[in-house]
Amino acid sequence: MGANDRFLGFESLGEATPFVDRILENIDYSRVFDGFERGEIRALARYLHCYRVPAGAELIAEGEPGDFMLLLIDGGMEITRQDGSGLPVHIGNATPGKTLGEMSVIDGEPRFASCVTVAESIVAVLKREQLLRLATDRPQLGFKLLMQMGVLLNQRLRQISIEYIKCVNAARAAAR
Amino acid sequence: MGANDRFLGFESLGEATPFVDRILENIDYSRVFDGFERGEIRALARYLHCYRVPAGAELIAEGEPGDFMLLLIDGGMEITRQDGSGLPVHIGNATPGKTLGEMSVIDGEPRFASCVTVAESIVAVLKREQLLRLATDRPQLGFKLLMQMGVLLNQRLRQISIEYIKCVNAARAAAR
Repeated sequence: MGANDRFLGFESLGEATPFVDRILENIDYSRVFDGFERGEIRALARYLHCYRVPAGAELIAEGEPGDFMLLLIDGGMEITRQDGSGLPVHIGNATPGKTLGEMSVIDGEPRFASCVTVAESIVAVLKREQLLRLATDRPQLGFKLLMQMGVLLNQRLRQISIEYIKCVNAARAAAR
Repeated sequence: MGANDRFLGFESLGEATPFVDRILENIDYSRVFDGFERGEIRALARYLHCYRVPAGAELIAEGEPGDFMLLLIDGGMEITRQDGSGLPVHIGNATPGKTLGEMSVIDGEPRFASCVTVAESIVAVLKREQLLRLATDRPQLGFKLLMQMGVLLNQRLRQISIEYIKCVNAARAAAR
């Protein structure tokens, strides 16, 4: 579901400019915005739209096409993915400063996991069209943001590759 | 090892402009450059430096810091990663059109795998400093390139995540 439909019905808080201080407070927990200065966050904030969302809201649904990513400003989220029988399996939690949905905002492919608020939350939404607009308006900033998204994807790729190799090796050892 | 040291001693072929046609021939096999038009490849080619490399040359060494990525223009490469006892395990092969080393060019972290030529090859090297220069000179093109690198990283991340989940599930089933 696109951002426009997904956030319909939630309280709109407008662009993220009033939340710049709050974003900077948690920037150490945010790999994507790590290394951004106040001026850059202020500039980025104009491309983000904020919403207040109650607990229990599914903001990202596994398998759906997605055209936005989220920055969690306040509150918390749980990340799940369905197992073979369709039951949701806990993958992780997100706390303020974390971003969610970076993969689909880049490639538009179906969401890999679902994200549900576990408390009343404030989220900043970066739609794909806004990311592309940023690239046109402020290309250096757009490039920097994409580099950081690449850093985050790399980190996940390295982690899961190591876990995968461990799992394969353990399976081989068990089969002997 | 940085690009400057790594390619010292190989035959330098200069910037990639003379190889634009060859790059375009194999562009369907190249996720990173997929969707780039001739004019864009021509513009990018000025930031790439080409080398002719004999068979058996290790161009990327697992564990070393890296500041470049490669586009294989001609020839072939094998990708390996050491197992727990330090022996190289075959991970894959690269054919013309494929890119290698995208992760480290983005984040400068140690190389995840090694890449060795299996035949005489022509490679185009994109150094990190050239990627950043591209972002300054031609920000829209730099942004597009990074988006495509993100698409590639995403694809790998999705694939390996699915394989990892399968492996974990199989291990659980076997333990029952």
